[in-house]
Amino acid sequence: MPRDKVIALLTDFGLEDNYVGTMKAVIAGIKPGASVIDVTHGVRPQDITGGAFMLSSSYKYFPEGAIFVVVVDPGVGGERRVLCAQTGKHIFLAPDNGVLGPVLSEESEENVVSLVEVSNLKFFLHDVSGTFHGRDIFAPVAAHLSLGVNPARFGPRINEFKRLDVPGPVNAADGTLSGEVIYVDRFGNLITNIDRARIEAGNARVLSVTIGKKEIEGLGATYSDGRPGETLALIGSSGYLEIAENCGNACESLGCSRGEKVTVRFNKG
Amino acid sequence: MPRDKVIALLTDFGLEDNYVGTMKAVIAGIKPGASVIDVTHGVRPQDITGGAFMLSSSYKYFPEGAIFVVVVDPGVGGERRVLCAQTGKHIFLAPDNGVLGPVLSEESEENVVSLVEVSNLKFFLHDVSGTFHGRDIFAPVAAHLSLGVNPARFGPRINEFKRLDVPGPVNAADGTLSGEVIYVDRFGNLITNIDRARIEAGNARVLSVTIGKKEIEGLGATYSDGRPGETLALIGSSGYLEIAENCGNACESLGCSRGEKVTVRFNKG
Amino acid sequence: MPRDKVIALLTDFGLEDNYVGTMKAVIAGIKPGASVIDVTHGVRPQDITGGAFMLSSSYKYFPEGAIFVVVVDPGVGGERRVLCAQTGKHIFLAPDNGVLGPVLSEESEENVVSLVEVSNLKFFLHDVSGTFHGRDIFAPVAAHLSLGVNPARFGPRINEFKRLDVPGPVNAADGTLSGEVIYVDRFGNLITNIDRARIEAGNARVLSVTIGKKEIEGLGATYSDGRPGETLALIGSSGYLEIAENCGNACESLGCSRGEKVTVRFNKG
Repeated sequence: MPRDKVIALLTDFGLEDNYVGTMKAVIAGIKPGASVIDVTHGVRPQDITGGAFMLSSSYKYFPEGAIFVVVVDPGVGGERRVLCAQTGKHIFLAPDNGVLGPVLSEESEENVVSLVEVSNLKFFLHDVSGTFHGRDIFAPVAAHLSLGVNPARFGPRINEFKRLDVPGPVNAADGTLSGEVIYVDRFGNLITNIDRARIEAGNARVLSVTIGKKEIEGLGATYSDGRPGETLALIGSSGYLEIAENCGNACESLGCSRGEKVTVRFNKG
Repeated sequence: MPRDKVIALLTDFGLEDNYVGTMKAVIAGIKPGASVIDVTHGVRPQDITGGAFMLSSSYKYFPEGAIFVVVVDPGVGGERRVLCAQTGKHIFLAPDNGVLGPVLSEESEENVVSLVEVSNLKFFLHDVSGTFHGRDIFAPVAAHLSLGVNPARFGPRINEFKRLDVPGPVNAADGTLSGEVIYVDRFGNLITNIDRARIEAGNARVLSVTIGKKEIEGLGATYSDGRPGETLALIGSSGYLEIAENCGNACESLGCSRGEKVTVRFNKG
Repeated sequence: MPRDKVIALLTDFGLEDNYVGTMKAVIAGIKPGASVIDVTHGVRPQDITGGAFMLSSSYKYFPEGAIFVVVVDPGVGGERRVLCAQTGKHIFLAPDNGVLGPVLSEESEENVVSLVEVSNLKFFLHDVSGTFHGRDIFAPVAAHLSLGVNPARFGPRINEFKRLDVPGPVNAADGTLSGEVIYVDRFGNLITNIDRARIEAGNARVLSVTIGKKEIEGLGATYSDGRPGETLALIGSSGYLEIAENCGNACESLGCSRGEKVTVRFNKG
């Protein structure tokens, strides 16, 4: 008997309203006892970049066969398409607005096996609203996927998907590396777009990391490498350079947030 | 083998404390492996009207046999009764304070098959506190329901339940229709008490919707019918007239919230 | 066949980010279909005392065999140990920072059968980050526990664990009992460190409870013993003296929060 496939939900719906609960109700009606895991529903409303980061930093930890339902969808009911992307290990359902960009990009370990535009009404709820496709399209299609329906039945095969227009880090002529804060978590940790590979590429030691008016010496390995209240820079758990405060909130202490520029200096030689 | 019945939890407990987790612990102790779905726990503290709206706009999406546990209960421990209402498709457990009003009202598709006052201590936790019936009464009773216990064993049959005293929309002599905002969701969408049937009753086209100082022309079908930042009126996913802002937050932009008056003008002729 | 053991998660991760979702993904990869219950993830960042209270006031309601994973861990990646404590009924996984103190203390009904330092890399994720042991250590170890792995395989047996340095209530020479607010819940209820046993010890009737400038006469049994808006004192659902406001928020009305002193006066004779 095949193992039960996990359905992983990631939305900007929050948990204040009944939107997530209603999606789970629809799934339970089609696939009773489905295994559903909430990746998060705390993406800021309509924040496609934030949703993409939440997905790309978590999907690798899900078991093979997981079905990701990513609903950060400011264009709901408009002309944007609904994508179903199958890769070697997972299936991703999402609006074609860039939210799957990082996960499906060439840097990723995920290789797209098939890409389909989801349009077959047969797999939707009978009445499709213009404003809640999470309930009317994404939830029922995900439930059918977990029942083993082949994505090819959802609609025509397509070749292109929208990528996300996010700035990457930049190597300057003076040998420094510049990037920016792309996510701030609950603890006030400032997560940048500079990944471990980029930092280690030059085989040089990090001298300092500058954010706002703050210059931080070297890299730490864990939060408690600093004294309580000390700001430090380290490679965080998602593999990106992160500015944190031991037992504190770096976002508040530094007055920095998303978009803030970060510069890394190296010791060449 | 009978299908597993879903237990659907809807409370004002929030997720900051351990109240919801403790209810689930009690359920798991009586019915290991129970299928529990959180409708939402984000109802504002003691907001019976908000809880009733969350329930009435989601219950239809749950599979047949679902057991709803609705704990918005400012009168906990006092003289209010605990209701168990069985309808053709679902079972509802809630304090008798009006929160089940809309779902059980005559307009609803749900027909009440039996109505019982839950009072049989045999199905409660051994020690019943005066302040947390979610844990001590609602959770264990729901778990027993999911095991197949007949509601008639919970207590005496009753004939009446408390209805909710909420204002409905009003047709004025000048042909306009007036209502008010009854719910504001995470996205700042302003949901009114004017339902689709009421708007379509006159077979007339909507000319404009007025809220606060804002007059909106006609009805849209989806958020992206407006330009980004544009305010629009549409029939939302729960079937009610809603004022929204494309890629924005209508509640903040208009400075309107719950209770705000809304007027619909029609093109007669 | 042995019953499925519940994995109970209690963290300060919040639900805005993907931390909790990623822990659940790791668990699902090792133990497909695991029964996971969220106690709460709303503990304030790095608030060990708050986490300890959330645990001690809920664990008794979980079924026997439950595996508690308590990740409030400001010292993550540093020298603090990871504990696995087995008691007669439950298993507790947590950093050795005091968060298990109240549950394992002698006053508790839980008797520690074995205490192990979790250090065997074989049960961790392959790459262990310095900042997210919830994902890399706690989640996989919990999943292995739920598969029936003996805690003795996780590392060496130890004899000591860190206790929490929290102030207890004090009996004064004038016969009064003094304590403080240790937790404020979503409803603004002010929960103190004075438990029922302490209040009932003297076999005397409570005359009044004083908090800030407010003196409350006697004890109520439930919130609705007060008029709407009235402040009252009662023994709350976790067994501690609590100051609440009927249909209101005592924390806001009284301007009191955690740490506020509370004095109980008795009628002797």
